[in-house]
Amino acid sequence: MVRGIGFKSRISTDKALNKMFSKLPTLGYEYVDIYSCAKRVLAEDVVAKTDIPPFDRAAVDGYAVKAEDTFGASQANPIILRVVGSVEIGENPNIVIKENEAVRIATGAPIPKGSNAVVMLEHVNVLNGDVEVLKPVTPYKNVSKKGEDVKRGELILKRGEVLQPQDSAILAALGYDKVKVYKRPTVAIVSTGNELVEVGKELEFGKIYNSNSPMICNALAEEGFESVYLGIARDNKKNIEKKLINALKYDVIIFIGGTSVGERDLVPEVVERYGEIVFHGVSIKPGMPVAFATVNGKPVFMLPGFPVATYVSFYTFVIPALYRMMNTRIIARKWSRVKGILQTRVSSEIGVRGFVRVLWEDGKVYPIRISGSGIISSLIRANALLIIPEDKEGYDEGEEVEVILIRDLTEVFE
Amino acid sequence: MVRGIGFKSRISTDKALNKMFSKLPTLGYEYVDIYSCAKRVLAEDVVAKTDIPPFDRAAVDGYAVKAEDTFGASQANPIILRVVGSVEIGENPNIVIKENEAVRIATGAPIPKGSNAVVMLEHVNVLNGDVEVLKPVTPYKNVSKKGEDVKRGELILKRGEVLQPQDSAILAALGYDKVKVYKRPTVAIVSTGNELVEVGKELEFGKIYNSNSPMICNALAEEGFESVYLGIARDNKKNIEKKLINALKYDVIIFIGGTSVGERDLVPEVVERYGEIVFHGVSIKPGMPVAFATVNGKPVFMLPGFPVATYVSFYTFVIPALYRMMNTRIIARKWSRVKGILQTRVSSEIGVRGFVRVLWEDGKVYPIRISGSGIISSLIRANALLIIPEDKEGYDEGEEVEVILIRDLTEVFE
Repeated sequence: MVRGIGFKSRISTDKALNKMFSKLPTLGYEYVDIYSCAKRVLAEDVVAKTDIPPFDRAAVDGYAVKAEDTFGASQANPIILRVVGSVEIGENPNIVIKENEAVRIATGAPIPKGSNAVVMLEHVNVLNGDVEVLKPVTPYKNVSKKGEDVKRGELILKRGEVLQPQDSAILAALGYDKVKVYKRPTVAIVSTGNELVEVGKELEFGKIYNSNSPMICNALAEEGFESVYLGIARDNKKNIEKKLINALKYDVIIFIGGTSVGERDLVPEVVERYGEIVFHGVSIKPGMPVAFATVNGKPVFMLPGFPVATYVSFYTFVIPALYRMMNTRIIARKWSRVKGILQTRVSSEIGVRGFVRVLWEDGKVYPIRISGSGIISSLIRANALLIIPEDKEGYDEGEEVEVILIRDLTEVFE
Repeated sequence: MVRGIGFKSRISTDKALNKMFSKLPTLGYEYVDIYSCAKRVLAEDVVAKTDIPPFDRAAVDGYAVKAEDTFGASQANPIILRVVGSVEIGENPNIVIKENEAVRIATGAPIPKGSNAVVMLEHVNVLNGDVEVLKPVTPYKNVSKKGEDVKRGELILKRGEVLQPQDSAILAALGYDKVKVYKRPTVAIVSTGNELVEVGKELEFGKIYNSNSPMICNALAEEGFESVYLGIARDNKKNIEKKLINALKYDVIIFIGGTSVGERDLVPEVVERYGEIVFHGVSIKPGMPVAFATVNGKPVFMLPGFPVATYVSFYTFVIPALYRMMNTRIIARKWSRVKGILQTRVSSEIGVRGFVRVLWEDGKVYPIRISGSGIISSLIRANALLIIPEDKEGYDEGEEVEVILIRDLTEVFE
């Protein structure tokens, strides 16, 4: 393309990115409802303000007891306990268990004072007002202890994380109804070119439909960014200038087209009058004529107008910039499949599809050693799932496995 | 977990999915603006209704000529042509070029009648009213021919594709301002459990915060689905029934919790009164007590209430169901990195970061052999990008490369 020839110097993509990063503002934070926080970037470390669970609770349906009272129980020698009440889930048990007493209890209910274990329904015979315990329990058997999932004061989520649905679950479990996130930049888009006609209008000979602005609006929406399309600037300085001034109401400005060095490539010239060109011309193909400037401290991207160049330069520069403005960088995307070496054996039952929560780090896969699907924190400590198919009993330590990322992997700036 | 013991029969995950798929309704289609169509599922094959480009246009800045007039031209023997006008981009050239005439032309402008090639600016000397051509051009040299990107009548996008930003670009280039997509199901969510308290309220002893409904609302939003949270049903049939009847206003209903076989697991029983239980109990871990029913033809999911089980069963059943209701199945997610064997050598310039559009299919990587960043269709024919770093001259045929998917890979149903 002859249009590129006029570039005296081009900088490398990495150099351009670093120059750009050093010029980007951040926008402060806001609080959003935890029901609609997905994809937002966390603006503070979250430390657990309570325990999960918040009390010792029954992990099974059965009878809350003093474990010591059941020692020695067996089918042949059942131990009889007096049933002094029952606790449903959600109830505050106003009972204190004394020696040789039991309380009927539902999974999830707080165990009454004086009790320290739960005998499963399967291990008792219910008599009239009494139960026969057929098997002993040790202290805290069948009890989810207060804080066993999350301990008060523990660091749960780090600043810079892109919030995932499972994060909202743990935030809710901790009692948060709002979460502090970075403000998301709003983006203004201006297309340039005398040849452009908006879709829906009649196409005169010699013109083409504007295809880049829907592409960029959709790309921004897909990433969760709000954009405002300001229409087409014609190839004259006045028109471009007017659009630029209007666009400065938004946090980020994207011009598409008119960034090269031809006669009608006026955008960088106009932008330079109002601000500072940080780079113009990058060793990237397609996308070489891309330029970046700041005007009144606001980032102004000038993307080349050829659609593939628009696409590549948008994803190479604009998306990382928008995340950088929220102090984060995305290293790997959610739902990617990645391989790694399993660090501990995991097992599963033949005939069952098993989902193991794992932490994938630098090609290593660490199973999160928490059984029980009630442990919310395992979904946050893990960043991936290892699926064990029905015909496998598990995977061995040292085996290479493929896992699915369940969160975006990020790096925080600063 | 004792709660699971009551399941007499459990079916395999795949069998459950197939049973579910056979019971799901579709919702018809609607037209959406191409400026906001990302993530929508295309409801028809799109056939190009015009050519892209819509006319023969200059691919460089230069002079439109009759190629034959330049034959034999060289630095030593320049051929002189008379400049009879100029065409700017976006203009309809009302000039007809005759023998030994030339017209100044800008990149993207339609070439005038009578011309069939463009001589680059670099290969002429501009004289007073004339140009000296220093290098011959062959017919259609430096011309983007009408239809070279997309030919009228070509199949561009297939029904069942999840629309990507680049798709909106080609739709716009073809003049579409709206696109026909499947209606997206709306989802009602009901949490169940006497122990649950909504975030923002005070937590009495024995209760826990409802953490599953924010998780599911965020998970739906992230995938682009609208959800309505209908609050908590307490563990009694009347309350569950009331929520169910209310939820039937929406396309899909999700109950969370109360799906097992304990005393307070009343949801399947209530749902069964109004409809048909398709399955209850699946060989999946966690998530075993998951159930699926239809009520008045509407899908009703009953997800287990333990958070990890909720998560796994949601992504295993609900998400595939919602896409199935739009006749599509997602096989691999956008932005995933996948490996494959390169089928043709690709080359790049040292010092430049190159982005090659490729088609990844069954572990094979086919470069899309279209140079020029003006070719929009290359972004649609490709489904991945191969990035060639600055220190590489390219990759060889047969080499294993890693590419990044730039669209969700899908399979259409029916």
